[in-house]
Amino acid sequence: MNQQYPSLLLERAVGEFSKLPGIGRKTAMRLVLHLLKQDDAMVENFGNAIVTLKREVKYCKVCHNLSDTEVCLICDNPKRDASTVCVVESVRDVMAVEATQQFNGVYHVLGGIISPMDGIGPSDLEIESLVERVKAGGVKEVILALSSTMEGDTTNFYIFRKLAPYDVKISVIARGISIGDELQYTDEVTLGRSIVNRTLFTGNV
Amino acid sequence: MNQQYPSLLLERAVGEFSKLPGIGRKTAMRLVLHLLKQDDAMVENFGNAIVTLKREVKYCKVCHNLSDTEVCLICDNPKRDASTVCVVESVRDVMAVEATQQFNGVYHVLGGIISPMDGIGPSDLEIESLVERVKAGGVKEVILALSSTMEGDTTNFYIFRKLAPYDVKISVIARGISIGDELQYTDEVTLGRSIVNRTLFTGNV
Repeated sequence: MNQQYPSLLLERAVGEFSKLPGIGRKTAMRLVLHLLKQDDAMVENFGNAIVTLKREVKYCKVCHNLSDTEVCLICDNPKRDASTVCVVESVRDVMAVEATQQFNGVYHVLGGIISPMDGIGPSDLEIESLVERVKAGGVKEVILALSSTMEGDTTNFYIFRKLAPYDVKISVIARGISIGDELQYTDEVTLGRSIVNRTLFTGNV
Repeated sequence: MNQQYPSLLLERAVGEFSKLPGIGRKTAMRLVLHLLKQDDAMVENFGNAIVTLKREVKYCKVCHNLSDTEVCLICDNPKRDASTVCVVESVRDVMAVEATQQFNGVYHVLGGIISPMDGIGPSDLEIESLVERVKAGGVKEVILALSSTMEGDTTNFYIFRKLAPYDVKISVIARGISIGDELQYTDEVTLGRSIVNRTLFTGNV
């Protein structure tokens, strides 16, 4: 006497949803029942958006971000400053930087981070293509925006060495205490670095 | 300088996912990027499962549960006891009862609960069809398994009155302290009811 689904279609849809990360069978059921309550067009759109995305999306040949076309919308946008390249680990990090609305340059997606423990070396990442991009000229500044971890620091250093021969400014995003953090709860490494890397107080926050 | 998606297909897929309840844009992005990493067949299956479900699923004409066919798999299963009908509010409740693996009868899905505050009266629910089902004969027991709320009690009472003329046993699921609960943290109404409705101790748990 096992749990029985009244409908195989329902069982299949719940099964597919529960394959997603962080979604168990209960949540999957909730989502499927929600979709059943929507109108047909909305559900068709949902299904099609996913299938079409997987079928048609490719990687931008300039920055290796996801793209519908040979060159992605960000690289292709004439309003964006192509001379400032922000180096990130993944597509998700591009979205995180975009969400800040503080950056108007372009990106370079490494597709990972140097991590000997996971067997990921420089040749597995889009580092050579970054060097080529700088070599080709037109890039004035490379901003390293990787995670503040051992692997991130290693990757930063590797890229720094690789780009050293070229006339390009290399910067790294600021590390320090988070906005809203209280000093007494900040770990000593972060606090120590934020003292060493203090900036001039200008009255603006 | 708004947040810019590098790909319209990506933006569309994230948008569709974030329409689901409890899924914000960050989670949507995580799910979409996960799907992009899977192979094509898996993603096609996912999209098709949803579209097909919505297009083809119907309601069982006997119990009003979701079904692929005129009569659902539970009603159609000869191993299940069709003389015991468990009355529940929704499809989700059917799955909850099924998950207990303690019930081998069939269901009747009301599609809601009597709630004057929300403008839901008996005629909006599948109560008349329940009466017809009992009237047609073959049902020995109706188990009322609705929520233990004011609305649930009202609906129980309404159904009880409607079924009174017929020769059918009407029972209600036990209410009492939850398994694993400590007495001191149980609310007094539940505790009071569990004392009034005490059962004979047989040594079995």
